[in-house]
Amino acid sequence: MTENQTATSSTAAENAQDHVNSARLQDAIAALAAFGGRDDGGVARETLTDIDLASRRHLIDTARALGCEVEIDDCANLFFRRPGTTDLPPVLTGSHADTQPVGGKLDGAYGVLAGLEVISALNDAGISTRRAIEVVAWTNEEGSRFGPGAMGSSAFVDPSRLPAYRAVKDSDNITFGEAVDKALQQAKDVTHRELALPIASCVELHIEQGPVLERANAALGVVTGIQSVRWYRVSCTGMAAHAGTTPMDERSDAMKAAVTIAHQLYAHAAAEAASNLRLTLGRWQVGPNSVNTIPGNVDFTIDVRCVDAEVLERFEKFLQQIVAAYTWRGNIAFECFFSRPPTHFPEDMLTLIERACVRAGHLAQRGDPQHLTSGAFHDAMYLAEHCPTAMIFVPSKGGISHNAAEETAPEDLYLGVQALAYTVVELANR
Amino acid sequence: MTENQTATSSTAAENAQDHVNSARLQDAIAALAAFGGRDDGGVARETLTDIDLASRRHLIDTARALGCEVEIDDCANLFFRRPGTTDLPPVLTGSHADTQPVGGKLDGAYGVLAGLEVISALNDAGISTRRAIEVVAWTNEEGSRFGPGAMGSSAFVDPSRLPAYRAVKDSDNITFGEAVDKALQQAKDVTHRELALPIASCVELHIEQGPVLERANAALGVVTGIQSVRWYRVSCTGMAAHAGTTPMDERSDAMKAAVTIAHQLYAHAAAEAASNLRLTLGRWQVGPNSVNTIPGNVDFTIDVRCVDAEVLERFEKFLQQIVAAYTWRGNIAFECFFSRPPTHFPEDMLTLIERACVRAGHLAQRGDPQHLTSGAFHDAMYLAEHCPTAMIFVPSKGGISHNAAEETAPEDLYLGVQALAYTVVELANR
Repeated sequence: MTENQTATSSTAAENAQDHVNSARLQDAIAALAAFGGRDDGGVARETLTDIDLASRRHLIDTARALGCEVEIDDCANLFFRRPGTTDLPPVLTGSHADTQPVGGKLDGAYGVLAGLEVISALNDAGISTRRAIEVVAWTNEEGSRFGPGAMGSSAFVDPSRLPAYRAVKDSDNITFGEAVDKALQQAKDVTHRELALPIASCVELHIEQGPVLERANAALGVVTGIQSVRWYRVSCTGMAAHAGTTPMDERSDAMKAAVTIAHQLYAHAAAEAASNLRLTLGRWQVGPNSVNTIPGNVDFTIDVRCVDAEVLERFEKFLQQIVAAYTWRGNIAFECFFSRPPTHFPEDMLTLIERACVRAGHLAQRGDPQHLTSGAFHDAMYLAEHCPTAMIFVPSKGGISHNAAEETAPEDLYLGVQALAYTVVELANR
Repeated sequence: MTENQTATSSTAAENAQDHVNSARLQDAIAALAAFGGRDDGGVARETLTDIDLASRRHLIDTARALGCEVEIDDCANLFFRRPGTTDLPPVLTGSHADTQPVGGKLDGAYGVLAGLEVISALNDAGISTRRAIEVVAWTNEEGSRFGPGAMGSSAFVDPSRLPAYRAVKDSDNITFGEAVDKALQQAKDVTHRELALPIASCVELHIEQGPVLERANAALGVVTGIQSVRWYRVSCTGMAAHAGTTPMDERSDAMKAAVTIAHQLYAHAAAEAASNLRLTLGRWQVGPNSVNTIPGNVDFTIDVRCVDAEVLERFEKFLQQIVAAYTWRGNIAFECFFSRPPTHFPEDMLTLIERACVRAGHLAQRGDPQHLTSGAFHDAMYLAEHCPTAMIFVPSKGGISHNAAEETAPEDLYLGVQALAYTVVELANR
């Protein structure tokens, strides 16, 4: 290999891909997992806790050892910058390093460490890029200590969100603002930077947290977008009455109404299988909830997701229709209490990621990547409001996540970083 | 009227029926309702409380004023005996005088006071009967302070049940045995009698506690039996997973399984409408019961009732079939955790009650009685194990019971006692 391969970018991308080191990646994952590591293999590293702050110092030291400039912004997002040959806006990669109260080694952490491994590979290969490459560790993606999640990335793309975030308190009455200030205090040696700086493009590598790739025996996933989600509350109000003395045709049975509606919703979801509609009736409240009393009140929630907003529109119309069509003595009402539109990643980003994944997969004789949508939210969802953004997924064993049992085969983790390296170098040379 | 009309029994029965006094009945109901009476019209007179003991003294005094002999047994059941002209086993009527924590004036109390009103009518008419007539006030029918209900009547027909009942504690740690002993102590002036004495026949008059008679605009109901009941617990065990990341065909959705089973059960009940099958899916437990998590566990209860045991057999077979036919990754199990066979009242008792109701109803221009089954349990259910037994119902306004709003039109209450008087006199002259 010769140095300075910027002239033929694809060659540089392939070269970077070929210099990714699986053993070094595994060591980096193990080293970060030691911060908050548990005997069961899980990791307890909620955002901005002392453990999280110690892990940030570890990341800063690691990045500096790779020659990176380190910067921090007002939301305590950390940026590890490998300069380019120009001052053009950088290419961003990374994810988050915080975990659920008990999470695994990979959710978020993998994306941050993958970015640093790309920098190591570029260093090893002696590759320069036109644009700087920045690896980011977003603050508080999980949202378990301070809600909502993805505070760091959403405040980055829209700093006007930050004041409200700073007022949010954890269960010990500590505000997010106080926790951020403590992180900034401990990073006095780190250069401060503004929020919402221009970014050329962003790629986030993440574990799937679902079973699609494993089922398809695919090592890599091209994430085409993030599903739209709507949450509804359906309230059925009938009349509680004695199970023994009330004839069937005299009843105002709220559970029968709820089951009838729910059954039709499941049938609708089955009919929309080709649209990849996802339907969950997750929370139920039944009153009076007694064996021998006809339920007088049944409330249940609907979580419905699809990358195609029209499918959700159709769903809502169907819900309206069946509620209106159900004739009984009681009443059914529903309301949408949360809604988020879909994120569609740009076609040219997907084409590039496809090419990166195909090369990595074919070299490893693992075949083509799988295209899929993300059912969970990610920092990339907010970055997509700011710059061309996309995601790469690697499989999750058994689809398990937010759990100590979270696991991905080392080869799949390696291939993921290979795909990321190719993609980032291509983007950084545009 | 002349005295001693025993020679022509039907004439005596008609004569007794004609001497029932509605105003006296209403006064008696109001007087008993004063014990535990509430501002909202409800009555709080749980079994063997001081209020209940005071009301028992009131009943003893009332019965003695009518010339009755009063007796009490080891379960504190009170018997008010109007002697017959022979020593043949007596005819029994009555019900219970205890209430739910908050009940109405009529549930139980009406049956006891109706028995005393029959004795008043017989006295007024100067009628003697071959057999003695005994009016009973059973202890603890409601079961709200000490469970199960109907302790008095079930211990009467099978005294071996009493020791276990005596050990049952209320929420203040007082045993049923201690409460019974206190009642016996306060009734030292009352003759003690054995449990399980021979009874010729038994008739219980009660409010319906359901809407059937009101809907049919019938003043009187001939109760053909007490429904069989079975309680099942259905347990659906799938796998909790992320609502966003888990595709529909990878799910093991316990709620979808439960809704599918429940929907088929409601359809089965609709198909069995002609059999008067009553189906209630009353108590639901959902885990983890979160908006964005696929339910991993759903348990629900089935309360199914019918007077025809074969219909319940068919129901159970159907339940078995649909559980076996539901194919998914998870497991469905069900178990029957309570079961009571149906009670069928004897044909000749029903014929007699029909005749008594027809006469009372036609005199009042209210038409024929309605035949119906009881969906609730009653003391008569246990008495049917001991002697020929039957029940008469009067309407409940709006089907409401176990509630301060419990109500029955005075005319219907009057017609009920008329039907009871006719029936009891006929039985007492057999």
